[in-house]
Amino acid sequence: MPSYEAPVEDVLFLLNDVLKVEKYGNLPGFSDASPDVLSAILEEGGKLAAETLAPLNVIGDRQGCKRHDDGSVTTPEGFKDAYLTYKEGGWIGLSLPPQYGGQGLPGVVNTIMQEFISSANLAWGMYPGLSQGAFAALYTHANDEIKQAYLPKMAEGAWSGTMNLTEPHCGTDLGLLRTKAVPQKDGSYKITGQKIFISAGEHDLTDNIVHLVLARIEGAPEGTKGISLFVVPKFLPDAAGEAGERNALSCGKIEEKMGIHGNATCVMNYDGATGWLVGEENRGLNAMFVMMNEARLAVGVQGLGMSVVAYQNAVTYARERLQGRALTGPKNPDGKADPIIVHPDVRRMLMQMRAFNEAARALILWVSLKADVLHRSDDEKAREEADDMLGLLTPVIKGVLTDVGFANTVNAQQIYGGHGYIGEWGMEQFVRDARIAMIYEGANGIQALDLVGRKLGRDGGRAIMAFFQEVGAFVAANKDNEAMAPYTRPLKQGADDLQAATMWFMQNAMKKPDNAGAGSTDYMHLFGLVVLGYMWALMAQAAQQGLAAGGNKAFLEAKLTTGRFFMERLMPETAAHLARIQTGADSMMALPADAF
Amino acid sequence: MPSYEAPVEDVLFLLNDVLKVEKYGNLPGFSDASPDVLSAILEEGGKLAAETLAPLNVIGDRQGCKRHDDGSVTTPEGFKDAYLTYKEGGWIGLSLPPQYGGQGLPGVVNTIMQEFISSANLAWGMYPGLSQGAFAALYTHANDEIKQAYLPKMAEGAWSGTMNLTEPHCGTDLGLLRTKAVPQKDGSYKITGQKIFISAGEHDLTDNIVHLVLARIEGAPEGTKGISLFVVPKFLPDAAGEAGERNALSCGKIEEKMGIHGNATCVMNYDGATGWLVGEENRGLNAMFVMMNEARLAVGVQGLGMSVVAYQNAVTYARERLQGRALTGPKNPDGKADPIIVHPDVRRMLMQMRAFNEAARALILWVSLKADVLHRSDDEKAREEADDMLGLLTPVIKGVLTDVGFANTVNAQQIYGGHGYIGEWGMEQFVRDARIAMIYEGANGIQALDLVGRKLGRDGGRAIMAFFQEVGAFVAANKDNEAMAPYTRPLKQGADDLQAATMWFMQNAMKKPDNAGAGSTDYMHLFGLVVLGYMWALMAQAAQQGLAAGGNKAFLEAKLTTGRFFMERLMPETAAHLARIQTGADSMMALPADAF
Repeated sequence: MPSYEAPVEDVLFLLNDVLKVEKYGNLPGFSDASPDVLSAILEEGGKLAAETLAPLNVIGDRQGCKRHDDGSVTTPEGFKDAYLTYKEGGWIGLSLPPQYGGQGLPGVVNTIMQEFISSANLAWGMYPGLSQGAFAALYTHANDEIKQAYLPKMAEGAWSGTMNLTEPHCGTDLGLLRTKAVPQKDGSYKITGQKIFISAGEHDLTDNIVHLVLARIEGAPEGTKGISLFVVPKFLPDAAGEAGERNALSCGKIEEKMGIHGNATCVMNYDGATGWLVGEENRGLNAMFVMMNEARLAVGVQGLGMSVVAYQNAVTYARERLQGRALTGPKNPDGKADPIIVHPDVRRMLMQMRAFNEAARALILWVSLKADVLHRSDDEKAREEADDMLGLLTPVIKGVLTDVGFANTVNAQQIYGGHGYIGEWGMEQFVRDARIAMIYEGANGIQALDLVGRKLGRDGGRAIMAFFQEVGAFVAANKDNEAMAPYTRPLKQGADDLQAATMWFMQNAMKKPDNAGAGSTDYMHLFGLVVLGYMWALMAQAAQQGLAAGGNKAFLEAKLTTGRFFMERLMPETAAHLARIQTGADSMMALPADAF
Repeated sequence: MPSYEAPVEDVLFLLNDVLKVEKYGNLPGFSDASPDVLSAILEEGGKLAAETLAPLNVIGDRQGCKRHDDGSVTTPEGFKDAYLTYKEGGWIGLSLPPQYGGQGLPGVVNTIMQEFISSANLAWGMYPGLSQGAFAALYTHANDEIKQAYLPKMAEGAWSGTMNLTEPHCGTDLGLLRTKAVPQKDGSYKITGQKIFISAGEHDLTDNIVHLVLARIEGAPEGTKGISLFVVPKFLPDAAGEAGERNALSCGKIEEKMGIHGNATCVMNYDGATGWLVGEENRGLNAMFVMMNEARLAVGVQGLGMSVVAYQNAVTYARERLQGRALTGPKNPDGKADPIIVHPDVRRMLMQMRAFNEAARALILWVSLKADVLHRSDDEKAREEADDMLGLLTPVIKGVLTDVGFANTVNAQQIYGGHGYIGEWGMEQFVRDARIAMIYEGANGIQALDLVGRKLGRDGGRAIMAFFQEVGAFVAANKDNEAMAPYTRPLKQGADDLQAATMWFMQNAMKKPDNAGAGSTDYMHLFGLVVLGYMWALMAQAAQQGLAAGGNKAFLEAKLTTGRFFMERLMPETAAHLARIQTGADSMMALPADAF
């Protein structure tokens, strides 16, 4: 059975030495998060993930969720107890606003917990995870009455949340949606329609489930401009604010999926269910985007989390499995064979995962701190800059971290040889579970289109220019530093490729939009390499400074080596991405559809 | 439920127009395979795959195999009937020697059937597939008595075969194996030990199962030099040559796997089972390699087969699913949305699969014809050349076609969005099934090592030099042909990268073997791109000639476009592989094992 250990030391290195979290001390909540407090929270959270959640991961996969004839759903053995432990520990409200019962700690702390939980038990983690997105949407867009009714219950974890977008005939293209909302005299609406792929749509973990549902108010315009957002609870709040009368909605079916069996993916039927408008009429997508952006970052974190736990188990196996001899002579001469970690091709896979994991973790913390600035700073300029970078990087994080995260679970499985294909070793579950992250919250091709079609050009390209400027300034500041050259030179090369690709779009996509679409996925991954490379440059700098200051030698030197591996082995891919982008759409689009 | 259609037209184009199968008319069996006969066989075989085998694929996945308390195993519903149909059609002996009851048709015909069957039902196909490998090992190495006893039954399909290599503590490193063989007075041996991961180890499809088992004769040397090969039937042949007395072997367990549920992956226990030596004492690996090389090529074909069926279904979905509008304006203005095949990023995935599939099919047919030359020609020089190329390309075909084949099933699943993750659509099964091909018959890292460590340098590099010469001659012959330039220029660039990588190994791997190991997987994929690129150049030439001769315009122009896509979008990767290879092993091997 696979095991998991939370990477607390690495997180503390990132927060304290690389990202210098003390710089953010003036933001609300950060003063409560001293290094000691942070360290204690992470230790505690890591323990919870490793000891309470990870052991339920295989059980969740085997048992799955069970829908009963009355439409109720039972989660796998142990899921509910774990949820109660988590709830009672106050983890759900960790970074939520104190005014609704949250602890108000920095959002970055919650992001770290998301990584730990995703590694330990992805399917379980989706239950509280979706609540956080629903909380954010209500917090930002709902009126005060709704906030008072729902947010404290959600921050406490007594009630959970979901998001209901997809219908059988519409996923990406929400303009096609048909679920309808009929206004009632008391200001509420009757919601009718069918939603599919609703994660955590029905379960037994909480007293109530707060569905956020996109629907079309009778008479609203067609397309995306006629969609509104509603809060539709499973039980209507009673006079005391508790879960009261059952609402007219139910789970019609649980999907049989490739993985994340521990999470109930529901068909939800709304049969004139009572709901209330969130935000303005016909501006539902706008409100839902708050939730989707949170969710997209969280899904990127899931990609990382899966890669981390797969890596850890691959390392264990590679150290223990004896097979063959090192090309350079026996390393375990007293044994009948060497551990397979001596073989370069096994190392290649391990180092690839490691070099990605550590940079991806840096990236999500870096971006998460920007989210904290956006949500908590009173400096308007700082908020704008943070918002720009967050908007630009959200699709990159979602798309790249889940694509590479999945590929890494496949590599980790490969290290196990035949045993990787057998259920009992647990590695194939990681592959099946990680696969969903490339699909939900906007398939990765949609992320790439969002990046290229929307985020790049926004505000005259302000965000991407700021990014180039930041990376350029770092490279310039280190140009005489020979020790940094193995990091800054490939970084500059990658950034140049990214800049060339950006220019190419500017020159070629206006007159022919397919040129942008044809290069979008390559561009997203090119961007990913450059921003992860930038993280490695930051980490290398911090490691060198740490070594000079007498820090943990083994830890810091491993950082420098791993960063060098990233630059040598992963960065060369930027040139191939650029070459592909520059070939444009012609050969891609030339075949008539019936020639396929 | 997914569907399948055998690509008969494409195969005929390859055989007749690209590879010019009529050139081989002097080889035994080829004169029976006139274009009309070939076409009729392929139509018939394609129909069998599509109509008999494909419908059982989902059933096989859902039901899996069932082991009963007495150790017997039941295959999924319909598997046995399909096997009987297949057997009665004479398909098992299609290319086997007439002297043992086979039809003696060219091996390439059988290879094509392997592709069709892998697409239609991978798990089912492994039952007859393994028999063919076992047949080859016995045919090449067994004495006449054994051949007479087993080969006619196997060619007929009345008995099936297996290969038994792996033990719990030894997979790749067969030198560690412990199964023992004790000589008996009558010339037979008693075999005792446990084998794992035995595909088709026990089932209900045939009257007998012929296990080929690697074991160590009492007193034999340690390591790989003390391993012998034995034939150990489930039922001992009786006086009439039929399945007689039960042998002392049994299936102890069926593994629960990620996929290929329809094939029984067995733990096989040998408890003093009666077996007979195949080939020489202590030369068992040598004999088993005949089987493994056949099997490795067949597994490469499986990778292609999975990619093909995944592609076909992704195309169907991409044509039918309406979502969003083309970037260039509505293509289905009367509908509420356009089919998603209009979106460049969807095309990108489809074209990637298509460009790979068509070249990979050309490659396996090209190599399969070389195998026919090797096994059937009386021209010693031609046999040597064929053997060289077959040896060199076997690891490339196994490693690259299964890595890319798997990646393509993931892409095909991605085109389905959320529906791709749900069981009922069948796409996730392709991903789970295709995953095994990267692992069994030597994990792909082992293929890469075989290529770099063994095949490259053999006979002074004769094979790789012949390959470079052939590609170089093709490029030179077409250097003034402008119409071929979009194919020959990138091909030359790729071949130059491959040559540079080869040189780099020669200069850097002698003094430091880890440099070869560190670049082996990149080298294998670099080689794969170049040889697939060469196939595209051959196909482009044939397509241009065909167009000039008034051939099928739509078909031939699609070839030219798809080939151009391959050159523009896939070939640029050769430079990244070369860059990685040239960085060597340093950063990969620098971390101490306990730093992971």
